[in-house]
Amino acid sequence: ADIIRNHSGTAPGTWIEKDGKIFISLPGVPFEMKEMITGYIIPRLSEKLSVEKNKRIIKSLLTTGIPESFLYERLGDIEELLHGNALAFLPSQFGVRLRITVIGEDADDAENQLTRIEQQIRAKVGQYIFGTENDTLEDVVANLLIDRGLTIAVAESCTGGLISHRLTNVSGSSKYYERGFITYSNGAKVEHLKIDEDLLIKYGAVSLEVARLMAEGVKAVSGTDIGIAATGIMGPTGATFDKPVGLVYIGFCDSKICTAKEFRFGDDRILNKDRTSQAALDMIRRNLLGIEYED
Amino acid sequence: ADIIRNHSGTAPGTWIEKDGKIFISLPGVPFEMKEMITGYIIPRLSEKLSVEKNKRIIKSLLTTGIPESFLYERLGDIEELLHGNALAFLPSQFGVRLRITVIGEDADDAENQLTRIEQQIRAKVGQYIFGTENDTLEDVVANLLIDRGLTIAVAESCTGGLISHRLTNVSGSSKYYERGFITYSNGAKVEHLKIDEDLLIKYGAVSLEVARLMAEGVKAVSGTDIGIAATGIMGPTGATFDKPVGLVYIGFCDSKICTAKEFRFGDDRILNKDRTSQAALDMIRRNLLGIEYED
Repeated sequence: ADIIRNHSGTAPGTWIEKDGKIFISLPGVPFEMKEMITGYIIPRLSEKLSVEKNKRIIKSLLTTGIPESFLYERLGDIEELLHGNALAFLPSQFGVRLRITVIGEDADDAENQLTRIEQQIRAKVGQYIFGTENDTLEDVVANLLIDRGLTIAVAESCTGGLISHRLTNVSGSSKYYERGFITYSNGAKVEHLKIDEDLLIKYGAVSLEVARLMAEGVKAVSGTDIGIAATGIMGPTGATFDKPVGLVYIGFCDSKICTAKEFRFGDDRILNKDRTSQAALDMIRRNLLGIEYED
Repeated sequence: ADIIRNHSGTAPGTWIEKDGKIFISLPGVPFEMKEMITGYIIPRLSEKLSVEKNKRIIKSLLTTGIPESFLYERLGDIEELLHGNALAFLPSQFGVRLRITVIGEDADDAENQLTRIEQQIRAKVGQYIFGTENDTLEDVVANLLIDRGLTIAVAESCTGGLISHRLTNVSGSSKYYERGFITYSNGAKVEHLKIDEDLLIKYGAVSLEVARLMAEGVKAVSGTDIGIAATGIMGPTGATFDKPVGLVYIGFCDSKICTAKEFRFGDDRILNKDRTSQAALDMIRRNLLGIEYED
């Protein structure tokens, strides 16, 4: 044990290291304890951590479109994957952040272990990983659009402008963002997106068919390479017998394909808008990268 | 002094009250101290605070459209206003929260003092106060629109959908929100908002005239009671010699008036979008309440 001197009293402290753990004992009198913590313990811990910092690496993989429990199942034997390292599942309405913490024998070992774990995770759930660390999905989509010289137009109903807001949060968005329509009313859908009123009545505004027609319409009207559209019931009002709160359809249209997909989100209006916008951006990402949905 | 019994050791604690202050002494051994805090001090403090809680009132007045320093100047002699009570200025990109903390002789006295302070603040800067506590400006505007049975359409350039997103965050927004256009390109402004292309070229897309024409156009095209529009340079790119980053024009049009106003915000793209959306919502509020701008 190392003795920690007490400059304000008689009882000393002790610092003991055993099996990679540190045990510290201090006197109970607050101002004596405090002085020893600030004068000795914090400086020694800081030094110790800085020596070890290259041995510890933290990296986040950002997923979207798969619930935490499915992700966990998909990763299989977690102990086998991690070999004693740590993996945290951090969910939000935008997806699950997988935070890997690796502690190696040295810096090289840590780097190698991280690479192995990341590769194994990507092999199992790579299609859901849109970025790392502090990436946003709008940044990722913006970079894909800019790289390929593509333009996009947006038709929103339930999200009320949020998809466009996120696509235009990225600096330089006028390179790819052409225009957007928030067609809250049926009249606006018919007038601006050229959706056949009979089809709108037949299927209802919240339907797979209308989502696809909105994406097709906004692409045609705007003369862009891509059209993206969302229609759904955000709540708390607006549900019908067969269309519950949280039901959302997202449409995507480019030169190769016009498609739509159903999503089922939750009860909270604001979270539903966030989740719908994320699913719409992810549909753009998947289509641009040629990643098909599994279900 | 009251003796605080120590159930785990020998040294007792003491509780002394003097001049409205409480002095507590406890033994230095952590687990003894902890037990006395959870077992005696926290319960007694809780009881004491609940007796006194009606003597202390906290209320926030939410302002927007006036910088903290101007607000401070406008309020005049703060000591005279407060009579020993507290006023915190809490600024964000959405405005300045004025948090009043009053401590009275008793509950009635506290209530009276709060009323006096609030009335004096409202007399001086009332036009900038849009709500209290946790109100949002979109809630306030939504209530005004619903109360008067008015519909609104939105034409956005620089905000990229954020004004519409905020107006549709309120549950039941389809009562007043009809449709929105995000006319990022000049082509979209001409095509959907019916803006004369010659005027667009003459004044430039970021101008007082075009903001007014956008508001007028979106109201006419949508057949709503109100049109609101924003055009500006959010940064970091897009500035020209005479149009710096942060320059914004907001247009408003209803059955009585078609007008526009210039704003100068800052350098940060995301904050500029927030501030522009707030100024646009505030322009709706001011026009509906008949509150003119001072400058």
